Amino acid sequence: MFNFDVERFLKIQNGAASQKDAIDKALDEIEGKGGFKNLFLIGSGGAGILMMPAEYIMKTHSTLPVYREAAADFLAMNHKHFGPDSLVVMASLSGTTSETIEAAKFVKEKGAATISFVGHGDKPLAQATDYTFVNFAEDDTSCESFFMQFYLLIARIMNKRGEFPQYEAFANSIAKLPEGLLKVKEQVEDRAKAWADKHKDTPYHLLVGSGTSWGETFYYAMCILEEMQWIKTKAVSANDFFHGTLELVEKGVSVILFKGEDETRPMMERVERFAVQYTDELTVFDSKEFELPGVDAEFRGWFSPIVFATLLERVSAHLEHVRNHPLTTRRYYRRIQY
Amino acid sequence: MFNFDVERFLKIQNGAASQKDAIDKALDEIEGKGGFKNLFLIGSGGAGILMMPAEYIMKTHSTLPVYREAAADFLAMNHKHFGPDSLVVMASLSGTTSETIEAAKFVKEKGAATISFVGHGDKPLAQATDYTFVNFAEDDTSCESFFMQFYLLIARIMNKRGEFPQYEAFANSIAKLPEGLLKVKEQVEDRAKAWADKHKDTPYHLLVGSGTSWGETFYYAMCILEEMQWIKTKAVSANDFFHGTLELVEKGVSVILFKGEDETRPMMERVERFAVQYTDELTVFDSKEFELPGVDAEFRGWFSPIVFATLLERVSAHLEHVRNHPLTTRRYYRRIQY
Repeated sequence: MFNFDVERFLKIQNGAASQKDAIDKALDEIEGKGGFKNLFLIGSGGAGILMMPAEYIMKTHSTLPVYREAAADFLAMNHKHFGPDSLVVMASLSGTTSETIEAAKFVKEKGAATISFVGHGDKPLAQATDYTFVNFAEDDTSCESFFMQFYLLIARIMNKRGEFPQYEAFANSIAKLPEGLLKVKEQVEDRAKAWADKHKDTPYHLLVGSGTSWGETFYYAMCILEEMQWIKTKAVSANDFFHGTLELVEKGVSVILFKGEDETRPMMERVERFAVQYTDELTVFDSKEFELPGVDAEFRGWFSPIVFATLLERVSAHLEHVRNHPLTTRRYYRRIQY
Repeated sequence: MFNFDVERFLKIQNGAASQKDAIDKALDEIEGKGGFKNLFLIGSGGAGILMMPAEYIMKTHSTLPVYREAAADFLAMNHKHFGPDSLVVMASLSGTTSETIEAAKFVKEKGAATISFVGHGDKPLAQATDYTFVNFAEDDTSCESFFMQFYLLIARIMNKRGEFPQYEAFANSIAKLPEGLLKVKEQVEDRAKAWADKHKDTPYHLLVGSGTSWGETFYYAMCILEEMQWIKTKAVSANDFFHGTLELVEKGVSVILFKGEDETRPMMERVERFAVQYTDELTVFDSKEFELPGVDAEFRGWFSPIVFATLLERVSAHLEHVRNHPLTTRRYYRRIQY
């Protein structure tokens, strides 16, 4: 595969999967100290957006209240559900995102239990939380790594509450995922290159996703196409699509659909039936097309956003090349003060 | 004012404000039947998006759990917090939005108490809920009408829970709001016309909002600019702005900021300090610039999205005119089957 290191990928993703026991132990300890009455998922930008599937799954599988808030909002808003008996889960790949660090300090002062997921153990966020899970990753590998770790955490939380007896089977599927994702990448490689070649000058993409895959849809639009390629996007959820954005669809407008495998799939199929009629630039990524050896079928709906993240990295690798625009180039982000 | 009927506007908005006693009575009755343990806010597209400020205010003022879900998602997802002891609040201006009607039937069957806010009493949604608040409005007047009614509802809910002793003062401020909004429209009229003239051929706008005003920001982008004017947009919250979308800002890119008056205002000021340096097409709408006679200062942060909705209607009125594109023209919505 173009510009890709197989061993590095497997090491990072297996590193995420192997956090299982440490996550388990942390939750046991937190429970031993009295547990928690609700769960806060806090990040800034991408790291918070990648918590969306975990939030969605909790709402559909658990009665534990979950609140996902951007760190800057959380700091401003005086959230009435937050308190010393909240469990606060935070994430930052760099471990240096200022709003998230501030939020970590704030919640610790208030006495809440804190967990962080980071790419580096020697950075401020890692040092600001009670339990820190470090798994080195970079932009090209962080989505899958975060998704897997967030999932291991919520699966165990729900399991301890008696809401997810399939926990061990689920963790086994997670352990099989890195090899499966590698096959996804290999399978999509030619298509990713062709897509990048075709769309190198496309100035705008409309991205649609739903359910567990909505977060990855939103993330890819804002954090990759906008931030790393300076391409205009609109990410719209399948539920909103027919209430406004559909009017933008016409010949020549690039529409990208992320068809996952959870209970919202019929909503994506409805968008597809519409879009195929009105644009000649429709791209459909369907997680169902990819085998994930060793993964139980019942968890595939949770894994769709991970499949999309891993195949989109292949798209991005070719896109930066044909556009002669490195993914690391920024106009402003961490280059200027603001 | 151009293409504007003062009496009609005041009648509609005073109609919304005058729902106070009926909302109060409905809540008393629901309480008499055992009350509710959480609140669901459900709509499709715009009607659901306009519930965002109410959701935000509940999270910052009340310990009652609130869940805002798009009707289509809600129907698919098997939400674990929903049950017979939920209060479900729904809205649809037409009263005919199919996903919302289906959701109303579903939640009634499950035994939950139901309230709807509609523009017409003889349509299916009105007939599918226990308590129906009818206030005629159309696209140009519905935002303010919905906002005011949602606010009266949550203010009374919180008041009954002992979380909002200012309820009567708040309701008095709501009653004063229609006259104040009319003055906002008059004050912004020339600016709205100039903006529309200048931007009639602008193909893309980046809209930023925060806190109570984020919902109206999202709504104006998707439901007016995209749906009614077929103009591409990106709506981004102030908390996400610095984590991706900022890279799109450069000379010539239209950026529209909605500076409200709640606790997230400093986040908008930060976006403004950035944007003013990097684009020469910055528009700042600041609710603080507008007097609202008779409105208590402490509620102005809640009313910012209403101020923005009312001033944006003036922008839209001029925009449809100079673009020769009626706000009612659709390619697809309710014109074709999908």
